[in-house]
Amino acid sequence: MKIDGTPYRTIWVDEQDGRSIRLIDQTKLPWSLDIRRLTHVREIAHAIRSMQVRGAPLIGAAAAYGLCLALAEDATDAAMERDAAMLLATRPTAVNLRWAMERMLARLRETPPAGRLAAAYDEAGRIADEDVATNRAIGAHGRALIDAVAARHHGQSGGRSEGRPVNVLTHCNAGWLATVDHGTALAPIYAAHDAGTAVHVWVDETRPRNQGAALTAWELGRHGVPHTVVADNAGGHLMQHGQVDLVIVGADRVTRTGDAANKIGTYLKALAARDNGVPFWVAVPSPTIDWRIADGIADIPIEERPAAEVTTVTGRAPDGSVVSVRVVPTDSAAANPAFDVTPARLVTGLITERGCCAAEPAAMAALFPDHA
Amino acid sequence: MKIDGTPYRTIWVDEQDGRSIRLIDQTKLPWSLDIRRLTHVREIAHAIRSMQVRGAPLIGAAAAYGLCLALAEDATDAAMERDAAMLLATRPTAVNLRWAMERMLARLRETPPAGRLAAAYDEAGRIADEDVATNRAIGAHGRALIDAVAARHHGQSGGRSEGRPVNVLTHCNAGWLATVDHGTALAPIYAAHDAGTAVHVWVDETRPRNQGAALTAWELGRHGVPHTVVADNAGGHLMQHGQVDLVIVGADRVTRTGDAANKIGTYLKALAARDNGVPFWVAVPSPTIDWRIADGIADIPIEERPAAEVTTVTGRAPDGSVVSVRVVPTDSAAANPAFDVTPARLVTGLITERGCCAAEPAAMAALFPDHA
Repeated sequence: MKIDGTPYRTIWVDEQDGRSIRLIDQTKLPWSLDIRRLTHVREIAHAIRSMQVRGAPLIGAAAAYGLCLALAEDATDAAMERDAAMLLATRPTAVNLRWAMERMLARLRETPPAGRLAAAYDEAGRIADEDVATNRAIGAHGRALIDAVAARHHGQSGGRSEGRPVNVLTHCNAGWLATVDHGTALAPIYAAHDAGTAVHVWVDETRPRNQGAALTAWELGRHGVPHTVVADNAGGHLMQHGQVDLVIVGADRVTRTGDAANKIGTYLKALAARDNGVPFWVAVPSPTIDWRIADGIADIPIEERPAAEVTTVTGRAPDGSVVSVRVVPTDSAAANPAFDVTPARLVTGLITERGCCAAEPAAMAALFPDHA
Repeated sequence: MKIDGTPYRTIWVDEQDGRSIRLIDQTKLPWSLDIRRLTHVREIAHAIRSMQVRGAPLIGAAAAYGLCLALAEDATDAAMERDAAMLLATRPTAVNLRWAMERMLARLRETPPAGRLAAAYDEAGRIADEDVATNRAIGAHGRALIDAVAARHHGQSGGRSEGRPVNVLTHCNAGWLATVDHGTALAPIYAAHDAGTAVHVWVDETRPRNQGAALTAWELGRHGVPHTVVADNAGGHLMQHGQVDLVIVGADRVTRTGDAANKIGTYLKALAARDNGVPFWVAVPSPTIDWRIADGIADIPIEERPAAEVTTVTGRAPDGSVVSVRVVPTDSAAANPAFDVTPARLVTGLITERGCCAAEPAAMAALFPDHA
């Protein structure tokens, strides 16, 4: 997508040297657009762990490029397996990381060491390009859901064009910053907006790391999509009062039964959507589906992140400096589970690159007979 | 309650001059204990509006003392009615404010102007003292709910004393800082803790103003009650994994049918409690019950507070200074509904000064036949 008129991806191979990896350091947003150049696999691992890059699809692509950097240093079997395992261990919840490593290794194990570096860059490039195409398809399929609401509004207002916008609530950031480009949950919003449908987005702040306030609000703003940031607490009230037409969120891992792990707090919004008859959609590229597991609450590992993410908040001080301030008394403990699982029974449906389907095993298998 | 060994109330009449009002400025907590001395009614109105004092019971007591300061300047009928109306308009959601003003005016209208000042201080003092007694009674009744869980744990662990603590989740601050003393939702926790029951409190941060992280964590810490601060997003996940035995929250207004307005986000926790079979109790002193209305969602006015509370967060910087940092891009809008309404169907019961009852009209009327 574009930032002030210039098209960007979140990650790419440096055009000068054709080797090093460029990425937008998302811990610096929205206050500065800081593009880093990484040359060692351990820098990629650090970028994933410290959430300079985050979002399930982007984590997968970043790890793929990380393996490229690893192979540039040592392309032997032992080193390749060790570095892939190290990358795989950076974060536990998003299954795209495992998917990307398995895909890379499947090709590289069949490639002699001398040819591995070129094969790795080729495969990582394919993963990145496919992510872009996948998300564009999610946008096209999901746009139909938004346009259907717009058409209903238009009918209710007697065809007057000044009908109210379609109000979409989203949690965390599943925008282009969470992917290589386009986004998952935000792809339908961009597609509808670009096609002229009036869309307004309720952006959950998404404590503790504020990916909604810092990233979703920023990328929607840069693209010109109307939006309003709210505290994570507000969504239920908005739904009670008819101010949300649909909820669209991303996912870090979806089971073959349709249970969806996503950023902590997603489950609460799914409950509120159900209680108020608001459709709750999960935008899911197929690499996010873990066909091996059925019970999301029992079987998806939930990352516990540092307490400091809860006890401090980072923002811009009046003097322009970016500061982390402590918001919890110094002698109080904090806990920080980073994801929760929304049971399939609360999910209206999944928006995938092959179309929309119910969050249940038969419908998912019908759409992905090659995976299920 | 005690702060570092010294007993405090949140508001009191200055012991030196017997006239001015002392209160803890809660916007300065947890970083400094700043006790203000107010001498004019407009300072009280400002203290309520700016949330130097907050919490439904404390708002009521503060407004009562505000009327004392007003009468010290002008005790005529016209001035009294004008100043009472001004105090009544400071905040819309908590019904305790209306209750306190009506109680004060009922007595003062029957008192000649010359006797009004003394009568006002007497009546405000009664309101404050009754609040303390009411909350102590809520603590005693609510403690039984906590002890019942502890007994069940004890039974399950075969009577071993090292059984796990009773895990209570609370939202916002309904502790002694929200009242004159003891608190509403926290009163049962203090009572159980003081009686030797092992209690651990999950403290919702409570964005946007962080009353949980700043006030509840602080007062629990000062009293020595084990607690852990979590993002508002985390409660559903904790309940899914059996880590919450019961939820206790306060309220700003409860209808005669048991609908409960409380800090924004409470409704989401009630939904999660219902979905996971966790009891959800609302601690309600009788002045918080609005016997005139039945439909909380339709009839309780929800305050919309400044967007700046969402776009900025105040905390302590590494250099020790207290700073407000912006967490939302400068060109993004924000909305800030301050309360939501939890329908009675999601409330396990009310904890009142007369005992516990179901959140439904007949049970509430049976407990309060003099009001209903």
